[in-house]
Amino acid sequence: MQIAKVRGTVVSTHKEPSLRGVKFLLLQFVDEEGQELPKYEVAADNVGAGVDEWVLVSRGSAARQVPGSEQRPVDAAVVAIIDTVSVENRSVYSKRDQYR
Amino acid sequence: MQIAKVRGTVVSTHKEPSLRGVKFLLLQFVDEEGQELPKYEVAADNVGAGVDEWVLVSRGSAARQVPGSEQRPVDAAVVAIIDTVSVENRSVYSKRDQYR
Amino acid sequence: MQIAKVRGTVVSTHKEPSLRGVKFLLLQFVDEEGQELPKYEVAADNVGAGVDEWVLVSRGSAARQVPGSEQRPVDAAVVAIIDTVSVENRSVYSKRDQYR
Amino acid sequence: MQIAKVRGTVVSTHKEPSLRGVKFLLLQFVDEEGQELPKYEVAADNVGAGVDEWVLVSRGSAARQVPGSEQRPVDAAVVAIIDTVSVENRSVYSKRDQYR
Amino acid sequence: MQIAKVRGTVVSTHKEPSLRGVKFLLLQFVDEEGQELPKYEVAADNVGAGVDEWVLVSRGSAARQVPGSEQRPVDAAVVAIIDTVSVENRSVYSKRDQYR
Repeated sequence: MQIAKVRGTVVSTHKEPSLRGVKFLLLQFVDEEGQELPKYEVAADNVGAGVDEWVLVSRGSAARQVPGSEQRPVDAAVVAIIDTVSVENRSVYSKRDQYR
Repeated sequence: MQIAKVRGTVVSTHKEPSLRGVKFLLLQFVDEEGQELPKYEVAADNVGAGVDEWVLVSRGSAARQVPGSEQRPVDAAVVAIIDTVSVENRSVYSKRDQYR
Repeated sequence: MQIAKVRGTVVSTHKEPSLRGVKFLLLQFVDEEGQELPKYEVAADNVGAGVDEWVLVSRGSAARQVPGSEQRPVDAAVVAIIDTVSVENRSVYSKRDQYR
Repeated sequence: MQIAKVRGTVVSTHKEPSLRGVKFLLLQFVDEEGQELPKYEVAADNVGAGVDEWVLVSRGSAARQVPGSEQRPVDAAVVAIIDTVSVENRSVYSKRDQYR
Repeated sequence: MQIAKVRGTVVSTHKEPSLRGVKFLLLQFVDEEGQELPKYEVAADNVGAGVDEWVLVSRGSAARQVPGSEQRPVDAAVVAIIDTVSVENRSVYSKRDQYR
């Protein structure tokens, strides 16, 4: 999985019928220190992530291992909202601090 | 999924028999602000996208999660025509404005 | 799918038994204008492509969606010989012109 | 598989229900000589790897070929803790030396 | 598939139980002329390749299309030992010459 920040949304009315009701978030990939990487992904969101939150994104067939998405043509999904990232026992991100 | 602009078409008569009737679009990847990236993909199109439209493209096995394509050797498909892209509540793309 | 030019062949006698009889082509990826990219792929060929022809190559599990290859350990396959590539209604490649 | 060093952990309480109980490790990819590459991955860990250990990480659908993870939306998993890496019969890494 | 040179081995005792008995080779990717690329892969080997041999490596789910590996968490496998590589009817590699 990669770490990403929620930056926005993508809306479409004309799409594969199986994608009706799917929320698409625009994610910016970040490195483990939170530096933005020049890489984004549009991912299906089932966990209810909001703008600026850090999330884990799964890509490939993993994105369909989500109840209801088994047969949807999605190749990326938000699978978790991150609480903390620790590197060598040092905290580099804490959702609590972020939103204090 | 990635955001891409439809730029053209690829035509083939000599191909895997299961690909008969599939329309292949040439897509240019763009970043979330619409800057063209040096990356393209030829994708099967089922949603009827036209030149210059912004679309979502799914790659990998997701491209076969489209009715009729389950057993086609395709690794990329246009799955949605984009209406709007919003970044931090700012509109960066609107199909309506584009085609006004 | 990506656009590639057939450049040569790879031959192996000592291999997974399921690969017997599979023809391996060496493909050079090109961009949509035909500029060679620094990227190649060795792909299984079922459509009978020849040196210098432009083809579409599918990668990943799509390469096994070809009759007879369902259980072969291949991750790339030539799925079509390209007739024409058009970008914004301008012809950038035509097999007919190439071989005139 | 890629070689990676365990650098830390990622914790999430709000996630896909199927991910409950999964431990997420933050991995830094290294080359075969142990030089850190500018690439990381967050991977599910079933083998109990600890910080600074060298591991093998499998990505894509392979990450779900682990008992209990078959239907989890994970695209990367730690599948082995590395004992030794040898290049041209020269030892470039030995866990025993590392932890002596 | 990609062309790679066998450079060494990776050994692990603590790993997913399904990986017992699997031999892991360290492969360096090369281009079609044999120039080493800055990219390596650790791959399961079933064909018995030795150091310095050129091989074809399949990645992704293809790596599990090998008898006995269907449910192993491997994302790369050596599927063939290369005899010859020909580019535009010129021989660029021949195993026979290499080992003469």
